[in-house]
Amino acid sequence: MKKVDLNCDLGESFGNYICGMDDKVIPYISSANVACGFHASDPSVMSETVKMCKDMSVSIGAHPGYADLVGFGRRNMNVSPKEVKVMVQYQLGALSAFCKANGVELSHVKPHGAMYNMAGKDMKLAEAIAEGIYEVDPDLILLGLSGSCLIDAAEQTGLKSASEVFADRAYEEDGSLVARTKPGAMITDEDEAIKRVIEMIKSGTVTSITGKPVEVKADSICLHGDGPKAVAFAEKISKRLIEENIEICPIKEVIESGED
Amino acid sequence: MKKVDLNCDLGESFGNYICGMDDKVIPYISSANVACGFHASDPSVMSETVKMCKDMSVSIGAHPGYADLVGFGRRNMNVSPKEVKVMVQYQLGALSAFCKANGVELSHVKPHGAMYNMAGKDMKLAEAIAEGIYEVDPDLILLGLSGSCLIDAAEQTGLKSASEVFADRAYEEDGSLVARTKPGAMITDEDEAIKRVIEMIKSGTVTSITGKPVEVKADSICLHGDGPKAVAFAEKISKRLIEENIEICPIKEVIESGED
Amino acid sequence: MKKVDLNCDLGESFGNYICGMDDKVIPYISSANVACGFHASDPSVMSETVKMCKDMSVSIGAHPGYADLVGFGRRNMNVSPKEVKVMVQYQLGALSAFCKANGVELSHVKPHGAMYNMAGKDMKLAEAIAEGIYEVDPDLILLGLSGSCLIDAAEQTGLKSASEVFADRAYEEDGSLVARTKPGAMITDEDEAIKRVIEMIKSGTVTSITGKPVEVKADSICLHGDGPKAVAFAEKISKRLIEENIEICPIKEVIESGED
Amino acid sequence: MKKVDLNCDLGESFGNYICGMDDKVIPYISSANVACGFHASDPSVMSETVKMCKDMSVSIGAHPGYADLVGFGRRNMNVSPKEVKVMVQYQLGALSAFCKANGVELSHVKPHGAMYNMAGKDMKLAEAIAEGIYEVDPDLILLGLSGSCLIDAAEQTGLKSASEVFADRAYEEDGSLVARTKPGAMITDEDEAIKRVIEMIKSGTVTSITGKPVEVKADSICLHGDGPKAVAFAEKISKRLIEENIEICPIKEVIESGED
Repeated sequence: MKKVDLNCDLGESFGNYICGMDDKVIPYISSANVACGFHASDPSVMSETVKMCKDMSVSIGAHPGYADLVGFGRRNMNVSPKEVKVMVQYQLGALSAFCKANGVELSHVKPHGAMYNMAGKDMKLAEAIAEGIYEVDPDLILLGLSGSCLIDAAEQTGLKSASEVFADRAYEEDGSLVARTKPGAMITDEDEAIKRVIEMIKSGTVTSITGKPVEVKADSICLHGDGPKAVAFAEKISKRLIEENIEICPIKEVIESGED
Repeated sequence: MKKVDLNCDLGESFGNYICGMDDKVIPYISSANVACGFHASDPSVMSETVKMCKDMSVSIGAHPGYADLVGFGRRNMNVSPKEVKVMVQYQLGALSAFCKANGVELSHVKPHGAMYNMAGKDMKLAEAIAEGIYEVDPDLILLGLSGSCLIDAAEQTGLKSASEVFADRAYEEDGSLVARTKPGAMITDEDEAIKRVIEMIKSGTVTSITGKPVEVKADSICLHGDGPKAVAFAEKISKRLIEENIEICPIKEVIESGED
Repeated sequence: MKKVDLNCDLGESFGNYICGMDDKVIPYISSANVACGFHASDPSVMSETVKMCKDMSVSIGAHPGYADLVGFGRRNMNVSPKEVKVMVQYQLGALSAFCKANGVELSHVKPHGAMYNMAGKDMKLAEAIAEGIYEVDPDLILLGLSGSCLIDAAEQTGLKSASEVFADRAYEEDGSLVARTKPGAMITDEDEAIKRVIEMIKSGTVTSITGKPVEVKADSICLHGDGPKAVAFAEKISKRLIEENIEICPIKEVIESGED
Repeated sequence: MKKVDLNCDLGESFGNYICGMDDKVIPYISSANVACGFHASDPSVMSETVKMCKDMSVSIGAHPGYADLVGFGRRNMNVSPKEVKVMVQYQLGALSAFCKANGVELSHVKPHGAMYNMAGKDMKLAEAIAEGIYEVDPDLILLGLSGSCLIDAAEQTGLKSASEVFADRAYEEDGSLVARTKPGAMITDEDEAIKRVIEMIKSGTVTSITGKPVEVKADSICLHGDGPKAVAFAEKISKRLIEENIEICPIKEVIESGED
């Protein structure tokens, strides 16, 4: 039986500011990427989010980002590998404290926004992230875009990795995401999106924007929780996966089953 | 043989801003309180400071403060016990990551500035801090002012504590520090200051500002590293303690020896 | 004909975080207190909010707060009068730039949250704020709680002031607001709230929580824009005021009419 | 008689952190670029710095930077022209308040660090900055690198500009600065540096790194105040300029003299 993880960014509120529909999307996911106070979140939100994940038996991952609250960590910044490394260590350590305080495990790390995108294409940044995580806890899993530098860097470092795919994005022939600025970048038809995801899980390939098949590894599917439509899609894809006999389970189980 | 810990706040630089003479004072201390990015420091400074402590065999403690960089965590803020608790957990977790990455232990937690002062007199804040630490790691030691709420809260929570005294401050009859605004609050004569410290360690008492003796517990002495004069005093007091047959050793050893 | 200003805090969004229903409440108000980037807002939000106020012919005021984004400027902080003064100058200057860029006037300054509450009861803070504003522009109006230190400080400094009342709050005999923690602090019945407001405007008195009448000056009524219910109340009170032959107009006009 | 402005970045301290030797370098300069709280400084430092400039009769300019305190505004960030525009307006407005409060004029704006470098080469960013300044106050002078996009954008917008040269940097044939990473980028010999500056002022040319002469416009020379050596150099170059019959005067006078 095929297995897949459904992940979603949670805990992105900050102080008085509410962001995301965490309680609505959490029933459908198996892993949460929890913001760590740099691009979003604060200690109170982190503590509450970890408790919610524990209650709902959802696997917890750190979601470190750039220290750019006003830009939500989405603006590329010229940070050195050395800076990225300690930035990631700081943030995953902070989240670890809430995991320990609640008696749950930290399972993975997924870089956020601009850090995710930049490190996906820059081997030096990706290595710095992988090494940073490995130094703190070699049992953590690095969750990155399928085929990206993050996956390569994890392997190089001896860190376990999980490959992520997107239901709502088109792929180039080389397995990278089609830039949002290009026509056809977004898969807007929900049934088409789900069909593609099932194909990725079952066959390990997807039809690229040029029509040629491209290999992808679908350990985890990235979902969104930032609106009623996103939540409805999470419910829909989760039902369809079960109908297709694909088991939804945390990243750790998915990659352990893949090792067999 | 009597034992005492010498502690000092380290790692208070931030980005381009240099603060403190860490490398000059570190040879004379046994424990460092390392800032955690809220009132001072950043991930790079924290990483470097932990490495320096490791190299110099100095015991490492977290030094959490209020999220008030421009006020250096010295301005009282109306934070709830719940907020203080998660604030402390976040910061000690962040520092723990650098300890793990460098293969050293985190030994203690000492609240900084306004948090230290407020929690020293407010049992609810003190309890929140003690519980926050206990939940994350019950083996950590809470370093607080001798006779303050922090020490009481640690005991209540089942957390180990260490009592701190100040060489350069006068004491009230009840063991609290004389407010800086009052005449005679500061002990400016260095020899007098050292004499008092030795008295505190050996007899467990000090002469209060009114002339009456007051009981204090001197597990650790708070030193400063913020100028050539402070560093010279650290050297001087460290020499005098050795001459007096008082062993300078990390907090953990001091309190374990006290348990005998 | 009696005149009154309806004021509301606008522009409290920040980066990716949306806060308040500014476009829904703005049709019913005559003055906006625009957040200045310390407790809420950012340069983009400020620029957009000033443009919106201009389009809707709403008078613009600066709404400076403490540099406490995570606490939304609502946590009391131990800041000195000197610090408050420059904090207010900085923020009102920043907002002034957007007013100039859009060819509109800055009319008033209303301190936010903890700064408003603290300065309302602390003459030194109130004076620092009034002097800070006066130094930058002596034609600005200081908007503060009726009967508070802010109003006294403005008078002392030679600054114009406008007195604000709350529709949804009970008053003590001395004209101060009943603390939210006390029973009866909030006026939850909307019709009762509106009745009280009209009484305050027409007679200059309101029934205090003890039943005795208390004098208040109702130059401006503080409304909220943080939810559908708040917006509906803004619409309702605005209609009722017009029915009562009370003209809703910007602070400046209200206080100039009062000078006659 | 030739005229030139000597400018230096001042007011870069922040809260408890001291940075720069402002009081030592200020006697030798005619214009100060005052940090505005994004990459450095805070309201208290800004107020003090404006007072110091007034006392020393030094012309005041705003020195806006990216909101990146930990990186001191030196890290390139992917900000849009729209974001840069409001960022500059906010910061120059904030500084203006302190100028008004002290009865002095704001004379110019010089972008800081990464904003200066990026806008120097990116016409869209440069235009956004020039337009942002023009909207707030069309009489301000934009100080930018000689030959850079900032100078072109000012001209296009109808804003006055002043061209800056560096004493300690080598130039490419196209008038741009040799990247710091290249050999020969820094002019380390002080006498050579001063000789070059005098050449630039008198002839409007400088010998590029390839040996060919390149045209530069030397309205202002950028000095540093971040150490005893920098201060000594400021004193030295200021003396030599006077010996060479070059008058040191504020930017405004320099560019007005150039208009004749």
